This record gives sequence, C-alpha cells and structure tokens, in this order.
Amino acid sequence: MSKVCFGVDVGGTTVKLGLFQADGQVMDKWEIVTRTQEKGKHILPDIAASIQAKISEKAIEIQDVAGVGIGVPGPVKEDGTVLNAVNLGWGIFNVANELEKLTHLKVKAGNDANVAALGEMWQGGGRGSKNVVMITLGTGVGGGIIHNGEIITGTNGAGGEVGHIHVEDSETDTCGCGKKGCLEQMASATGVVRLAKKALELSDSPSLLRNGEISAKAVFDAVKENDALAISVAEQFGKYLGTALANVAAVTDPEVFVIGGGVSKAGSILIDYIKKYYVLRAFAACKETKFSLAELGNDAGIFGAAKLVL
Amino acid sequence: MSKVCFGVDVGGTTVKLGLFQADGQVMDKWEIVTRTQEKGKHILPDIAASIQAKISEKAIEIQDVAGVGIGVPGPVKEDGTVLNAVNLGWGIFNVANELEKLTHLKVKAGNDANVAALGEMWQGGGRGSKNVVMITLGTGVGGGIIHNGEIITGTNGAGGEVGHIHVEDSETDTCGCGKKGCLEQMASATGVVRLAKKALELSDSPSLLRNGEISAKAVFDAVKENDALAISVAEQFGKYLGTALANVAAVTDPEVFVIGGGVSKAGSILIDYIKKYYVLRAFAACKETKFSLAELGNDAGIFGAAKLVL
Repeated sequence: MSKVCFGVDVGGTTVKLGLFQADGQVMDKWEIVTRTQEKGKHILPDIAASIQAKISEKAIEIQDVAGVGIGVPGPVKEDGTVLNAVNLGWGIFNVANELEKLTHLKVKAGNDANVAALGEMWQGGGRGSKNVVMITLGTGVGGGIIHNGEIITGTNGAGGEVGHIHVEDSETDTCGCGKKGCLEQMASATGVVRLAKKALELSDSPSLLRNGEISAKAVFDAVKENDALAISVAEQFGKYLGTALANVAAVTDPEVFVIGGGVSKAGSILIDYIKKYYVLRAFAACKETKFSLAELGNDAGIFGAAKLVL
Repeated sequence: MSKVCFGVDVGGTTVKLGLFQADGQVMDKWEIVTRTQEKGKHILPDIAASIQAKISEKAIEIQDVAGVGIGVPGPVKEDGTVLNAVNLGWGIFNVANELEKLTHLKVKAGNDANVAALGEMWQGGGRGSKNVVMITLGTGVGGGIIHNGEIITGTNGAGGEVGHIHVEDSETDTCGCGKKGCLEQMASATGVVRLAKKALELSDSPSLLRNGEISAKAVFDAVKENDALAISVAEQFGKYLGTALANVAAVTDPEVFVIGGGVSKAGSILIDYIKKYYVLRAFAACKETKFSLAELGNDAGIFGAAKLVL
C-alpha cells in the first residue's frame, strides 16, 4: 500500500477530517463535533481517537501513514505553537507536539486560512503553481501566502493576514482587530453589506437592494441585473480588494490569486471588478497575474492539512 | 583552508566585488568599471577575469571556492534569468549560467535590492533574524523580503518591489514605473523633496527649507531644528511609509524592518516617524516588529551576493 495521510481542519463547531493518498486522492472524509467546553481540552483527544478508529476501520498499517496535518483557527508558528485560538478556548501551546503524543504519528500544524491556501495550490484553483495567494471572503477576510510551495507563516504566525491590510484612511468604524480601515471592513460578506447600506443611505436612486434583506449575494445578483447602485458598491469593493492585492503582488509576486469564501459564489463577475483595479495599481511585471475562483470549498482545509505532511 | 566565496554587486557604473570567508569575514574587496557599451557584453567576462585574477593573486585552491553570488539591477528569476537590466544594456538571459561558463564556478544570481536585504540579514541590521524586510530609501525605494533566510523572488522577479505599493489615490504625478501614487513617489530621496516642495507651495509659514536647496537631508536636518513645516513633511513621509510597511507585515510578518539608503542617514529620527504610523496601522500581532538602520551601506550587495552561495 502506498503512503496515506490525514488532513484535519478544526472549526469552532465541527472538525473536518480527511484520509488522503499521496497523489491527492480522497479515500474518505468525515466530521466530528468540536467540543470547546473546558478550554477545548477534549478537541485533540477526540481527533486522535477518530484517527485511530479510521486506521482500524480501514486496516491501515501504521508505517503507511505519512502523518497528520492540522489546520487551526488562530495564529500558528512554524514550530506548531498555536497562539490563542479563541474560538476553541485554546491558549498558547504546541498543538503539533500534543497531537503527536496522542497519535504517535508525525504531525504538522498551520493556521486554517494558510492551510486552505496550500490545499487550493495542491488540488484546487491554484493547481500547477507553487506561488499562490488565496483570499477567503467570508464573514471576515482571510488569506494565505504560498511561496515556492511553502506557507509564509511569518514571525508571529500573522503571515497572510491580508484582511487587515489598511485600505481606507477616512474609515470611522472599528474592525474586529481594533484598527480602522481594514480590507476586511470592505471586502468580507459583512463588509459588502456595510458598503451597500452606506450607498443606500447616501443616495435616493431606486435600487433592487431597497427590497428585502441586503447580503453580499443580493448585491452581486443586483449587479447582474445592471442595478446602478449595486454596481457602484461592486466598484468600491473592486477598488479596495484590487488595490490591496496589487500591494500584495508588490511584496510576494504570486503567479495566481485564488478567491474563495462565501462572497466568491458570485462567480467570475467578482474577478472582473477586482481585476479592473488590480491592473491599474499593480507593478508592471505583475499585471498579468492570474485570478481564479477557489475549487475545493469547505474541503480546502483538509486538503491543505494533508499536504503539510506530504 | 576553509571555504571562501565571491560576492559581486553589479551597478550601472562600477561592479563591486568581495572575497569572503564562510563566517562572513571580508578577506578583500575591490571595484572594476562597468562597461555598458555593446549591450553590456563585456560585463560578465570582466567579472570572470577579475575573479580569476584574485584567485591567482591569493593563491586560492579552486576546490576551496564555494561559488560566486551576483546581484543585478533588474528583475532576476529563481533560476538566474535576468529580465531586462536596462542600466546595463542587458536583455533576457540566464546570468547565472553565463557566469558559470566563464568562471567554472557555481553561480547564483539575484536582484540587487533582494541581495542587499540578504546581506543585511546576514551581517548587518537584521543580524540574528531569518525574517527580514529591507527598505532602501535612495533615488527610488527598493525592497527585499527574506523569509526563513530565503529571498522571496516572486514569479516575475518582482518580489519585494515595495517602492511600488500604492499609497495615494489622489496623486496626479506619474511614478517612474508608470503608475500614480506609489510609495516611491513619497518616501524616496526625490519623493521627500517633492513632498517638501508641495508643502512650501501650500503654506506661507516661515521655514528653514525656504533657504538653500531642498534635499531629504535638509528636510530631516530642519526637523531636528523643530521646523514646523519640515515636521509636517516628516509626518507625511512617516504616514506613507509606516502604512505601507504595516501592509507588508500583514503579508509576510517579518521580525525586523531594516531601513537603508541615502535617506536613512537622517538616523533614528526617521524610524520614529515611520513607527508612529506603523503601530497605528499594523495588525495586532505585528505591532512589536523591530526597526533598525542598515549597517553595511554600499557593501550590503557584496555581502548578500556572497551569502547566496553559502
């Protein structure tokens, strides 16, 4: 039997797990509940038990397991130390060492957004490239930077925190991070809603957005209906995100930007608005950088986690 | 004899060369003229001849030479391909392969600003760290990003082009790169002069800067004399550069920023103005990132080039 490995993606409510072949083929995937009570002390033992059960179920020889990769929702340093994963109740400890003790397998750990970027590089929207930047437009804006096939973790585990790139001097609202004017305040699902509500307040013009609840989806649906106000919101979104990604390109010069998360379900129209401003603001050598949509959805994390140990 | 290596820094008028021990000690350094005529075809043969002469002069055994590192003023890809070094008259070719053929030594090539960053990491202002961002404030603004001890070259050799981070939407002048509102237009030596001239035009208040020629040095000298107008220019400079570096930190999260180039001769006062805005705009985990002044001056290039092959 060729080598296999496990990819684990720890979320605030469920832990996703996957069993992979070295070529990226998924042999199995499943979920367990994330038990966050008692400062999350059950999470790693639960994961270890689930992996052991799968090894027994599939009658896998232990020497055929290359290891376990794990993505965690919080900053993770190169050595596997997690620094306060608040959603899990975790403080500061070495998650890789801890899970190694429990599983007797080689473990590597990374931040969930960084690990998802690695997954999209391996088997998703960045396939075929070793220099990938992934942006996840969800409730917040997450990011992961892959250079020469390796995650840029950074000194404090804050590599790829592109949601907190400063994009607006005049912002008066405060971002979840405590700063004012972060990309996340403009380009996340909630950010797009915020931009739309401001635009509606500042204008009397009719708009599809005046009927029903405003969501990022509603905004891009209205754009597809040629709604002028929605288009002005999409332009703002594109300017903020396109400029921020042009600035990322001036730092790490990726081959491809992969756009994922809930907002990216709007599809290729999203990329049109981002690229319009990206091309305007990107350094000459980087103007042709590709943009693609994420392909792995919620599985990006388990794919990337598996890739950590391959 | 322990291993030695050569570091070569190719400039538009002179080529700097250094002979190094593996521990970073300089055994010799010298310069030759850069002959840019005939599309720069003499440059590499001149370098090879100079290295051969030094090997003979010092009676170095060829097996003791670890190799030759070379920094080039233009984009250089991972494999050593230089993409139009316009100041040298060079088009697109593999400078590492070419110099290997001429010297029969192992050669590695990099962009000069990236290589200088590696030099400062090794033996200068970033000593002791593996995650360093160097910013060179000269005629332009150059940059080099080192992550885990390796240069981030990027897909198009444009990694670390931080001078072309977009920082000002309302800019009407065009940067040398063809865009409007680049960091280089604000924080280079010429950028600081531009900011000062604008400030003088917009104000009638007295200032030391109204006497004599305006230079970046004159601006920071006047700041030290408590000149209000010069201070307002330093604040603008600090806001642009501090914000841009906060955004770099949200991408690669370095341990230390090393500030070099002519403008950095103003000394630690420069860092005060940069940090003021950096701290305001940096992601929480990166607020404590260190700032230091470059230490190797014009030798950073030969140090970094040598380090490429060690």
